[in-house]
Amino acid sequence: MTSQHDWKSLLAAKKADQASRIPAEWKLPEEITSLVSPESSASAFDLFRKTSILTQLEHEITEKYDATSLLGRIAVGHFTALEVTTAFCKRAAIAHQLTNCLTEIFFDKAIKRAIECDEYLRENGKPIGPLHGLPISVKDLFMVEGEASTIGFVSYLARPPATHNSVLIQMLLDAGAILFCKTNVPQRLFVCESRNNVFGTTLNPHRLSLTSGGSSSGEGALVGFRGSLLGAGSDIGGSVRGPSLCCGVYGFKPSANRLPWAGQQELIPSGWPGVVPSVGPHAVSARDLTLFTRNIIAREPWHLDAAALPIVWRDVPRKETLNIGVWLGDSQIPVTPPVLRTLKAAAERLAAAGNQVKFVECPSLVELLDSASLGYKLDTSGTMESILATGGEEPIQAVQLLAALQAGEPIDLDSVWKFNRGREIFLQKWAKVWKENALDVLICPGSRQVAPAHNHYGVPVYTIPWNFLDFPASVIPFGKVDKSLDNAPFESGVYPLRYDVDTVDGAPCSVQVVGWRYMDEETLSATELISEILHGREELGEESHGAPRPSVL
Amino acid sequence: MTSQHDWKSLLAAKKADQASRIPAEWKLPEEITSLVSPESSASAFDLFRKTSILTQLEHEITEKYDATSLLGRIAVGHFTALEVTTAFCKRAAIAHQLTNCLTEIFFDKAIKRAIECDEYLRENGKPIGPLHGLPISVKDLFMVEGEASTIGFVSYLARPPATHNSVLIQMLLDAGAILFCKTNVPQRLFVCESRNNVFGTTLNPHRLSLTSGGSSSGEGALVGFRGSLLGAGSDIGGSVRGPSLCCGVYGFKPSANRLPWAGQQELIPSGWPGVVPSVGPHAVSARDLTLFTRNIIAREPWHLDAAALPIVWRDVPRKETLNIGVWLGDSQIPVTPPVLRTLKAAAERLAAAGNQVKFVECPSLVELLDSASLGYKLDTSGTMESILATGGEEPIQAVQLLAALQAGEPIDLDSVWKFNRGREIFLQKWAKVWKENALDVLICPGSRQVAPAHNHYGVPVYTIPWNFLDFPASVIPFGKVDKSLDNAPFESGVYPLRYDVDTVDGAPCSVQVVGWRYMDEETLSATELISEILHGREELGEESHGAPRPSVL
Repeated sequence: MTSQHDWKSLLAAKKADQASRIPAEWKLPEEITSLVSPESSASAFDLFRKTSILTQLEHEITEKYDATSLLGRIAVGHFTALEVTTAFCKRAAIAHQLTNCLTEIFFDKAIKRAIECDEYLRENGKPIGPLHGLPISVKDLFMVEGEASTIGFVSYLARPPATHNSVLIQMLLDAGAILFCKTNVPQRLFVCESRNNVFGTTLNPHRLSLTSGGSSSGEGALVGFRGSLLGAGSDIGGSVRGPSLCCGVYGFKPSANRLPWAGQQELIPSGWPGVVPSVGPHAVSARDLTLFTRNIIAREPWHLDAAALPIVWRDVPRKETLNIGVWLGDSQIPVTPPVLRTLKAAAERLAAAGNQVKFVECPSLVELLDSASLGYKLDTSGTMESILATGGEEPIQAVQLLAALQAGEPIDLDSVWKFNRGREIFLQKWAKVWKENALDVLICPGSRQVAPAHNHYGVPVYTIPWNFLDFPASVIPFGKVDKSLDNAPFESGVYPLRYDVDTVDGAPCSVQVVGWRYMDEETLSATELISEILHGREELGEESHGAPRPSVL
Repeated sequence: MTSQHDWKSLLAAKKADQASRIPAEWKLPEEITSLVSPESSASAFDLFRKTSILTQLEHEITEKYDATSLLGRIAVGHFTALEVTTAFCKRAAIAHQLTNCLTEIFFDKAIKRAIECDEYLRENGKPIGPLHGLPISVKDLFMVEGEASTIGFVSYLARPPATHNSVLIQMLLDAGAILFCKTNVPQRLFVCESRNNVFGTTLNPHRLSLTSGGSSSGEGALVGFRGSLLGAGSDIGGSVRGPSLCCGVYGFKPSANRLPWAGQQELIPSGWPGVVPSVGPHAVSARDLTLFTRNIIAREPWHLDAAALPIVWRDVPRKETLNIGVWLGDSQIPVTPPVLRTLKAAAERLAAAGNQVKFVECPSLVELLDSASLGYKLDTSGTMESILATGGEEPIQAVQLLAALQAGEPIDLDSVWKFNRGREIFLQKWAKVWKENALDVLICPGSRQVAPAHNHYGVPVYTIPWNFLDFPASVIPFGKVDKSLDNAPFESGVYPLRYDVDTVDGAPCSVQVVGWRYMDEETLSATELISEILHGREELGEESHGAPRPSVL
């Protein structure tokens, strides 16, 4: 296959085409774009403030609402889908020029569909569905009819555009959503970085020199910049939650296969016996995580994807207060000062609001990771290596690291037994924690670090456990790194890690909320309650709570 | 270990102890027991009619009710738990003498608990739980505190009595049930026969020369004889459904892990990557299958067994009519004449009652079995062989056959991938059948045969698919073999099978009802509706439907 393709010209053509998808009048001037680089400590928000591409209305639309409240505005005709879509296309174009977050850009199609949405509403007096007129961004891994799904592989440049929609994409469209762009991923996707050889590196909007995380890297940066209010990612070890916590975004990894996985670009070979990935949303509010998840599950994805779990959505009553376990992390793999401070502050605020908050001792993380790691190594057929070789690619730094980690004991049938046994054992251990403390949810670090410098994310040790155990887990952004508070000395424990507060000053902080398996409804409900306590309800903009909440049609 | 134990004396002691557990006054006379043998074509019911051990009341209690209606009678004080338990202990003792269905017998404990149940009801004015006072039998695989769990292995005779209850057992007790005996299994349990070297062969009450099926062999025979109205079995390839259809009993295999598996005797090693087994009930009515399943799931077994799926029980509204697909079986593996006749008769009756009944084309069963079979071969550590060797046992005929089937291609990591891939492919294929026909449920054969002669069950080809795909499936008894109707010539297709109508004349017939994964609630509801149409509501006895239906406490 290598001989058939001139990868260099395919790559050049791809980049030229991508650049051409942004209208000239939305292009940033050279004096701004020249400040954009993975070495720059500039903030995309600061650079954005120097521009005037967005109108006053577009600023309002993209800044004052979450998806839930904006949908309410569209449904009652306060904004047209066209106004909203135009605003987000423009803002996404700017986000891309500042962070390199997009892969496929199809604003023209989005505008066309927005007009159709508006016509539909006018003619029928009701929206197409619960996501009527809302622009939604999606990770490059999803198939969108007519668009490429390169997922950062040079060799995939030779693949034709998708001839079908992934099941999730089709369901979003059926619910009335508008697709407008696809977002970047790191090479190989199994790492929490943001670089590949096709689209380059996605930068963190809060500080360009920091990673946006991965593998839903572009979603993190785009939603973090409010270039999209709601995005679809996927997560096999932290790929929704990592970018979310790096970019100050809400993220949710449901129990595997509650949201439909089917019809994505080829990546994980069929028959995979390891850790099972999840599709999940990125959002600007906790209730938007529920909005997304509920509106897909309640529409019964198992009729379209036989592998989607036919577990009926339950609207659970909101609890007044919760039993919350707090895990400050494992002493052998300690978290950095801002992460620890954030968790403690969250625990204090939650206790003050009347919740039962209990610091809990948890099973050894080192041992858990030892078991879990087997569940990422079970493909011995060299799928990834062969994809890279076909495109004549070198592995990026993080992928080299991963390969080194994956070397070691031989992988065979016994590895599968060992992996399964490990999962059974740790499920029992965690069941004990849950039971003894009568937990509704656990809060814990989402990562040892806030967004680190590019190429320094390392192994996502605090997100992997919940993929391994298949527990639903969300990320709630909460505060920022403060140089004056977060400068305690840091001992990195058994996994080496360098911490430098100057590098990460101002980066978003967060907490992770974890629920028991299949208790996705309860976990989302708890995430909403916890978020309200941490932020107050005003976080969504003054008008948001008056707006009607769209329900499943 | 072999050297430490004199298996012959342990075996003799076990048999002597078992015999001593049946009170002398409940023993059948020699002139009846001399007629009992695996070669006899006698019916246990006919032999029973020659005895007068049961009182009039005990006949009424054991013959006129299903569990649901009997529970209603106990709850209102019409019968005491003591009366009911005594009746079933006596009838089980007779069943055992006629079919050899029991392993552990503990009538004394059952009587004691029944007295406690009656006291509780008198003192508190309400039952202990929804199963208050109901004697329930359980497969030998379950652990019952203080009782052995030999599961037919000679080497397990050396194991001490259980020091804990399996999770399901504990939940049954918590719900107010009374345990009174454990029931026989075939050697190795993965076969549908009924013989092991400890307890011997369980016979079919309808005709002693026929197998009672397996591996929940004793449950089939005992419930089939009404020596128990409700029993707990388990099913990894047909082990609940096989004995049910052999013995004219209702049986249900839920989606795996909806009922709790934890705490059973060692059999399937931890980490098993193959087909996942289910716990399931045997019953004398369709609604009793629901009674059992609902009362366990609604009490949230995942708090006691971390591996139990936290899928909340849903009370689904009963549909007026159903969309029923009818699969008459695969032409390459045809079913015998009585099975085909029964299915066609059921389809006709269901259509006449206003249901949408459609004969459907289904994916190749031969190919499915080829994929599924891998999921039973993935233990290459010789667990079973070593258990047999320790006890100095020879494999029974069915186990020898199984070993021959399992020989073949080498089993390695790739086998797991292949098994998973096969499951994905067949799930897609069956999804198409479900979707194109908008099925509520499928009805199909539960086996190619009715209960065959001992050692002739063969591979359970019509139950395995639903374990492989993890679909809930029930068995409804319906009619009997009629020599004058079922004497058509039989061509056995690619899997050889001999059919002789004289051998099976009078054996129970049945249909299998299959639902989509996790739609256990809908499958049970459909099973009730279909059963009512096939049998009319009178099947449960004249008083049964007037009795209050116990609900989950």
